[in-house]
Amino acid sequence: MRTQVAIIGAGPSGLLLGALLHKAGIDHVILERQTPEYVLGRIRAGVLEQVAVDLLNEAGVGERMHREGLPHDGFDLCFGERRHRIDLHALTGKRVMVYGQTEVTRDLMDHRTAAGLHTVYEAANVSLHDFDGSQPRVRYEKDGQTHEIQADFIVGCDGYHGVARASVPAGAIQNFEKIYPFGWLGVLADVPPVHEELIYANHERGFALCSMRSKTRVRYYVQCPLEDKVEQWSDAAFWDELKRRLPPEDVARMVTGPSIEKSIAPLRSFVAEPMRFGRLFLAGDAAHIVPPTGAKGLNLAASDVGILSRGLAEYYGGAASGREAGIHSYSQRALSRIWKAERFSWWFTSLMHRFPENGEFGRKMQEAELDYLVNSEAAMTAMAENYVGLSLG
Amino acid sequence: MRTQVAIIGAGPSGLLLGALLHKAGIDHVILERQTPEYVLGRIRAGVLEQVAVDLLNEAGVGERMHREGLPHDGFDLCFGERRHRIDLHALTGKRVMVYGQTEVTRDLMDHRTAAGLHTVYEAANVSLHDFDGSQPRVRYEKDGQTHEIQADFIVGCDGYHGVARASVPAGAIQNFEKIYPFGWLGVLADVPPVHEELIYANHERGFALCSMRSKTRVRYYVQCPLEDKVEQWSDAAFWDELKRRLPPEDVARMVTGPSIEKSIAPLRSFVAEPMRFGRLFLAGDAAHIVPPTGAKGLNLAASDVGILSRGLAEYYGGAASGREAGIHSYSQRALSRIWKAERFSWWFTSLMHRFPENGEFGRKMQEAELDYLVNSEAAMTAMAENYVGLSLG
Repeated sequence: MRTQVAIIGAGPSGLLLGALLHKAGIDHVILERQTPEYVLGRIRAGVLEQVAVDLLNEAGVGERMHREGLPHDGFDLCFGERRHRIDLHALTGKRVMVYGQTEVTRDLMDHRTAAGLHTVYEAANVSLHDFDGSQPRVRYEKDGQTHEIQADFIVGCDGYHGVARASVPAGAIQNFEKIYPFGWLGVLADVPPVHEELIYANHERGFALCSMRSKTRVRYYVQCPLEDKVEQWSDAAFWDELKRRLPPEDVARMVTGPSIEKSIAPLRSFVAEPMRFGRLFLAGDAAHIVPPTGAKGLNLAASDVGILSRGLAEYYGGAASGREAGIHSYSQRALSRIWKAERFSWWFTSLMHRFPENGEFGRKMQEAELDYLVNSEAAMTAMAENYVGLSLG
Repeated sequence: MRTQVAIIGAGPSGLLLGALLHKAGIDHVILERQTPEYVLGRIRAGVLEQVAVDLLNEAGVGERMHREGLPHDGFDLCFGERRHRIDLHALTGKRVMVYGQTEVTRDLMDHRTAAGLHTVYEAANVSLHDFDGSQPRVRYEKDGQTHEIQADFIVGCDGYHGVARASVPAGAIQNFEKIYPFGWLGVLADVPPVHEELIYANHERGFALCSMRSKTRVRYYVQCPLEDKVEQWSDAAFWDELKRRLPPEDVARMVTGPSIEKSIAPLRSFVAEPMRFGRLFLAGDAAHIVPPTGAKGLNLAASDVGILSRGLAEYYGGAASGREAGIHSYSQRALSRIWKAERFSWWFTSLMHRFPENGEFGRKMQEAELDYLVNSEAAMTAMAENYVGLSLG
């Protein structure tokens, strides 16, 4: 078969790109290795920047988000047993939307079904060919048969471990990486949130985050050793550890309950440059990973496909001359925003976690920075403008 | 002999404290191990915050500074071969004063001589006694004779290697330290500055700083390996290396000349807590060291003695009740400002130097932060408010 754009991966970035291309009248197919249920089972981020909200609106899938999502005007930083509010809206005029990645994915899937758009789930052994020429092709197997798609462009939205980035010749791509010496133990539970906004805590025992997906479902985390296995952590042990890292008044108010999901995730900063190789583009986790502090992962994926969909719309809809400007500038434009978000995520991670290897001086730098931050309008504004998301550029 | 306050060290912090105490009518003596010429020969900082300028004014020694000093409204950050101005005055309403530490010291010495105040130079084997009781004493040798001073208080302004901090029992003091894996090679030369304001450069070969002492005397630096010996660096080699780290238009304009002084200084962050031990106070380098990036060393020494002189004035001049509040709060008040300046100096050092141990990802974080910084009013304001100096608190 033949299409204009072949998208690899039906996670939120692939699905959002599909919705934006459909809106622009661009024919496309999405190939996904897993089942829809598997994709929906991934528990990920839950905080959307205005830029991501705008793109979901533009794609026509924002309705349920606006009905059920929770707009947040701020969040709390907790250190020295006290909470300090960062008033995002007062500092930047913007807010964020708390709405789980699972819900975004579901909305995009429903929209796709309603629009009759073509998604191939359980596409096995996907391989990319000839994207350095003018006739790229994607092959895959499904139900024992080999299929081939001819496309003008291929977009890899298939995550960190996906085939798209792995298909690029090693000499054409440069990887930048930092591994953090700890993980996040996360628990999902159906209890009311301890506080109406998120709480990020720097505690001598380690970082903690009280996040939420709705007014009846929480997502809480504690920093843990990378070597820990999730089986070592009973629900009771998790709640005990979380409570040790929060002020007494929050502990007193906290409602606990059985975990629906519990997992340990490593923290990683990763960027692959560039994000275009001939007629192959990378977007989202396929090209970059941020540590979850600051909730930039899904937002960067959204802004990548936002920039790319405009480039592709320009290509297919524009006048003959200059119609390639948008796709030519995609990598540079996306990376400019990505590196700033990588910087923010690295900084926020560095500020909030225990790093025993940085010694007592490192700990004192965190304390001084937190003390300075909550007392400086300029420093709080800088933090807030990154948290709500820098402009698409 | 007997005095109210015995000051150890006749560098700028001891001399400024003496001038402020004199103004408040408090009797004091300064002991200095070296000669006046030796003290004047130390080449150090050259940028004064408004807080330091105010204190010099208050002490009555600001006249020549206002006549000969250079008020600067901004400085330049240089990276990617381009300069970007940080407009301190537009961002904060404040400016800094370029006026060398040597000149500040000379003004304070002249003022001291004119006021007939007592300084003992070449005081050998200074030792501190009984500062945990109510009758502290200082002993020293001069011209082969042993002398003893009885005082109400002793103030250690005798620098990082001085006797004052070393006299505190190890269990009573906590040290925090970070050593940076490089040094600064500095050159003093009588040539016109390459630019009317300071230039801080982040270059792949390493940090460079074009500073000045006057319109005819420059102080330039390049980051160098800690193992380098100053004898390895001819003047020609220094100028060549400096030029490699600056944009072509600055290189074209740069006037070079023979060095008057050339030295390599290590970079260190250090804080000793607390800064009061009974009737002994520490101030300036005796209690804390910052890397020179950001020029906070002399300014912190000035704010320490500013806070302490007010506490002592309160003690001697106040009503009987509560007259000790100022000296009781000295350590905590001074340290609050010190830790923020330590944080700024560490951050600015981390942002501007080569750290090969942080890898390519670390380099990219610097680039992203610089790119963000010069494009964000909030981030520039946060930097500027630290550079011009946070309030005395």
